[in-house]
Amino acid sequence: MEEVNNMFIDKLITSIQEKKSPVVVGLDPRLEMIPESVKNKYIEQFGKGFRAAGKAIEEFNKEIIDNVYDIVPAVKPQIAFYEKYGIEGLMAYINTCEYAASKGLVVVGDIKRGDIGSTSQAYSTAHIGKTEIDGEYFEAFPSDVITINPYLGDDCIKEFMEAVKKYEKGIFVLVKTSNPSSKQLQDIETKINKKNYEIVAEMVDKWCEDSIGSHGYSSVGAVVGATYPEEMKELRKLMARAYFLVPGYGAQGGTAEDVVDSFNEDGLGAIVNSSRGIIYAYKNDKENADNYGQAARKASMEMKDAINNALEKANKRYW
Amino acid sequence: MEEVNNMFIDKLITSIQEKKSPVVVGLDPRLEMIPESVKNKYIEQFGKGFRAAGKAIEEFNKEIIDNVYDIVPAVKPQIAFYEKYGIEGLMAYINTCEYAASKGLVVVGDIKRGDIGSTSQAYSTAHIGKTEIDGEYFEAFPSDVITINPYLGDDCIKEFMEAVKKYEKGIFVLVKTSNPSSKQLQDIETKINKKNYEIVAEMVDKWCEDSIGSHGYSSVGAVVGATYPEEMKELRKLMARAYFLVPGYGAQGGTAEDVVDSFNEDGLGAIVNSSRGIIYAYKNDKENADNYGQAARKASMEMKDAINNALEKANKRYW
Repeated sequence: MEEVNNMFIDKLITSIQEKKSPVVVGLDPRLEMIPESVKNKYIEQFGKGFRAAGKAIEEFNKEIIDNVYDIVPAVKPQIAFYEKYGIEGLMAYINTCEYAASKGLVVVGDIKRGDIGSTSQAYSTAHIGKTEIDGEYFEAFPSDVITINPYLGDDCIKEFMEAVKKYEKGIFVLVKTSNPSSKQLQDIETKINKKNYEIVAEMVDKWCEDSIGSHGYSSVGAVVGATYPEEMKELRKLMARAYFLVPGYGAQGGTAEDVVDSFNEDGLGAIVNSSRGIIYAYKNDKENADNYGQAARKASMEMKDAINNALEKANKRYW
Repeated sequence: MEEVNNMFIDKLITSIQEKKSPVVVGLDPRLEMIPESVKNKYIEQFGKGFRAAGKAIEEFNKEIIDNVYDIVPAVKPQIAFYEKYGIEGLMAYINTCEYAASKGLVVVGDIKRGDIGSTSQAYSTAHIGKTEIDGEYFEAFPSDVITINPYLGDDCIKEFMEAVKKYEKGIFVLVKTSNPSSKQLQDIETKINKKNYEIVAEMVDKWCEDSIGSHGYSSVGAVVGATYPEEMKELRKLMARAYFLVPGYGAQGGTAEDVVDSFNEDGLGAIVNSSRGIIYAYKNDKENADNYGQAARKASMEMKDAINNALEKANKRYW
């Protein structure tokens, strides 16, 4: 009897290979960057407020998704940019996640949650699990994989791991983040001659074991910033089976060459996110100044080509 | 000209002194722990689902607040337990925060957010700031002070600090959490002979400087778990001006004696949270088995008395 494999990581890799792209489109809606016409339509209808903002964000995201769903494997809504618009913002988050999923995209919920055990369980239930109400089960915030902060240790992670296994979901644990001050705590040298991020990497490598899919990768991955290419090389070795979610490409300064080392020799092992560089590409694309969807598509293709070319040069073809 | 001081920290301390209590009531709604009568009323009305859950949680919280608002300075809703019930859960979160504020309580939003700069700014705006929509300003999630995860360093914290100053709010930075595996990363010895949590404590002590109120305490505080009394003593010295939010009392094992060292010699410097031990006290209180509000009031009084007695013994009167 053949078993159907629905593990998160296999679903992700299949999509990467089919679309020949490791690009993730970051959906970080900034109302001030959304075309006036989209924004004003809803402000006229609902007045200035969260309702108009939520509706404008949803329309903007759907247009982006319509233009990229066939050429990228995943989108990554950053929940902070939705929380900012209150309940209506979070409704736009949910609707965006559901719409992306309906188009076959993997949805990365960039939520960076983490707490003590019982509280992490509640977050896990909220985002990659199901909430029980008197014997019936409901989904609160739908995503395939979420980002997790490791500062509270195992107690926290193990709660998310349960949902990973039970619901065939994934997690990306923050190991080395893309921001300048990630050095401050993550790079501290410890007495055992390892930096903090290396210790977290070893923890991730252990957590990986439990959820290995058919390509040898785990549904437990790591966040490693494109802005630290040297650290990237080392982390790739420390967490051979972890898929990397790589932020920091484009607007934050990371290039295609910088991210090559986040991939293993098989050309797999990483997805690279760009948010501003793709969804607001229309601002710097004269040809598509009036068509943000088309500009986003073009930027996604260019990013894919740049990364695939860099991978080809490095003999890391995955396609 | 006398300036009215509305700093968060002064508001908190005034309330502690007026109510002669450093107790924080943690509002972590677990639907399965809420009295059947409250739950079933809404399930009958709305069917099983998030709407019924949200309404039941809101009623439960309001009854708790009505019974404690005159004897405790603050409540701490843990947002994970609301996210778990989706949009309707978060509406209950907002309504709970607003109701608590209307009763004069300080609202501690236990959200443990933290991200790169631009994203932390969005979280800050969402929870302790105001969201701009075309020149007008709106509040998304209302709280007086929030908990922050430091793993991403300064870039993250400085965004929250801006809102602290601009909107007279506060933050509590996670330094040493109450869970067993907090040791795993937080207790690691670094090459400079300091543990990670000590390094974070020193960072917090610096961040404190900017927002000192009239009692010498800062609107930038720290989370230090009651379950680590030895570490507590040391951390009290390292962050003399930081107010401590102390979780881990009661259900997690911390006692009144354990938390005495979280207070300075002036009897100030800490607020101690109990969630399960107060809001579900009715489960172990025969006299108040049918009156969870009254049971919560009694448990809050007992906790206050226990802590105040321990402080008195230690010559740390603040009243």
